[in-house]
Amino acid sequence: MSGTQLFYFPILIYAMQQLSIDTIKTWERFYRANFINCLSGFKAASLIGTVNKDGQPNLAVFSSVVHLGSDPALIGFINRPLAAAPHTLKNIEATGVYTINHIHPSFVAKAHQTSAKYPAEVNEFEAVGIQSQFVDNIIAPFVADSHVKYALQLVEIVPIKHNNTFLVIGAITNVLIDETLIADDGFIALENAGSMTSLGIDAYYTTQLNARFGYAKPNLPVQGL
Amino acid sequence: MSGTQLFYFPILIYAMQQLSIDTIKTWERFYRANFINCLSGFKAASLIGTVNKDGQPNLAVFSSVVHLGSDPALIGFINRPLAAAPHTLKNIEATGVYTINHIHPSFVAKAHQTSAKYPAEVNEFEAVGIQSQFVDNIIAPFVADSHVKYALQLVEIVPIKHNNTFLVIGAITNVLIDETLIADDGFIALENAGSMTSLGIDAYYTTQLNARFGYAKPNLPVQGL
Repeated sequence: MSGTQLFYFPILIYAMQQLSIDTIKTWERFYRANFINCLSGFKAASLIGTVNKDGQPNLAVFSSVVHLGSDPALIGFINRPLAAAPHTLKNIEATGVYTINHIHPSFVAKAHQTSAKYPAEVNEFEAVGIQSQFVDNIIAPFVADSHVKYALQLVEIVPIKHNNTFLVIGAITNVLIDETLIADDGFIALENAGSMTSLGIDAYYTTQLNARFGYAKPNLPVQGL
Repeated sequence: MSGTQLFYFPILIYAMQQLSIDTIKTWERFYRANFINCLSGFKAASLIGTVNKDGQPNLAVFSSVVHLGSDPALIGFINRPLAAAPHTLKNIEATGVYTINHIHPSFVAKAHQTSAKYPAEVNEFEAVGIQSQFVDNIIAPFVADSHVKYALQLVEIVPIKHNNTFLVIGAITNVLIDETLIADDGFIALENAGSMTSLGIDAYYTTQLNARFGYAKPNLPVQGL
């Protein structure tokens, strides 16, 4: 059996494929978009709530929220080109205030439906059947059924010239959260809130904790918490 | 029982807490960092591989990878201030090339250990026991055991002046993937790869598909796929 040694290699190696961007560029547009959107991995499934200058509410699903820093508490999200996704960005420019709301399985289908291209005059809360919530003097609407949500004040809109998208930077001003989710060390067990993660352009997942680890130091073995 | 009507409100309302940023700022530093880092939701757990100008490999865990666009295929990540996290960014500036590798449960503890502040001359692949993989003429190392990984060419480093972080923008040049993961429509079922999502500064999760939905249109009910 001269080939026996080959079987000591992990079987996975045989399934690994190398694809160049020149090959990927030849793919059909929607196939390619699904593939590239999935490649970067799991994302924070979020609904962003805004109002325009007349107080007309808007709600839209976003998957590009990114943590920028905790002191000051800055959060970013990527807004697609204005021609594709104008309402949220225009409202934030007009008012400076917006909310980010976690998505849970009980309303994930409605959340996805906010990605439809509704005209500017449509209130997506009403169109998809998600209840809005206004808190104190924060002019942007929250999602009533979201267990983890926060309001932000616009800090800067950074144009990304390479593809006409925008990095929208906001400072957290208020947090609404089910306080039973907060652990003794400040950690928020989002799986207990049912907060979802999204993948690609249309998939939504629940999560299961695998491990927490202690602060890593050189020459010390990693410690599970 | 004059108070009976109160019990018709969802019990959750009683646990919702509103926190202002002025309150959060008074919290102990690590408690606050855990809280704010979790608030933005689940993230793509990733290892970024680089080499310095002399070919010395570096590997570091990142949780701030963000999809910027699929045509051109641009991916961003946030690099912390240079004083806190110099090696990856300096290497990318020097060589223009880096890899992003998904993390799986089989090596998640080792992946987290790369967050230790090793000196510049330490090769984290060797220090934590992760096998590197070099492919063709791509000078940056991949993680051999990662089932989904890709190489990028630096496009732009955008300084974020408000907290001295950086948005690093790269164009995908090559993808290495277990081709059995790719669905007929280009979707990548990352749960089958065991690709993990991270939360906060130290937690790692596996995922379970809840739903995929069709392209949403106004006045049409949302369609499960």
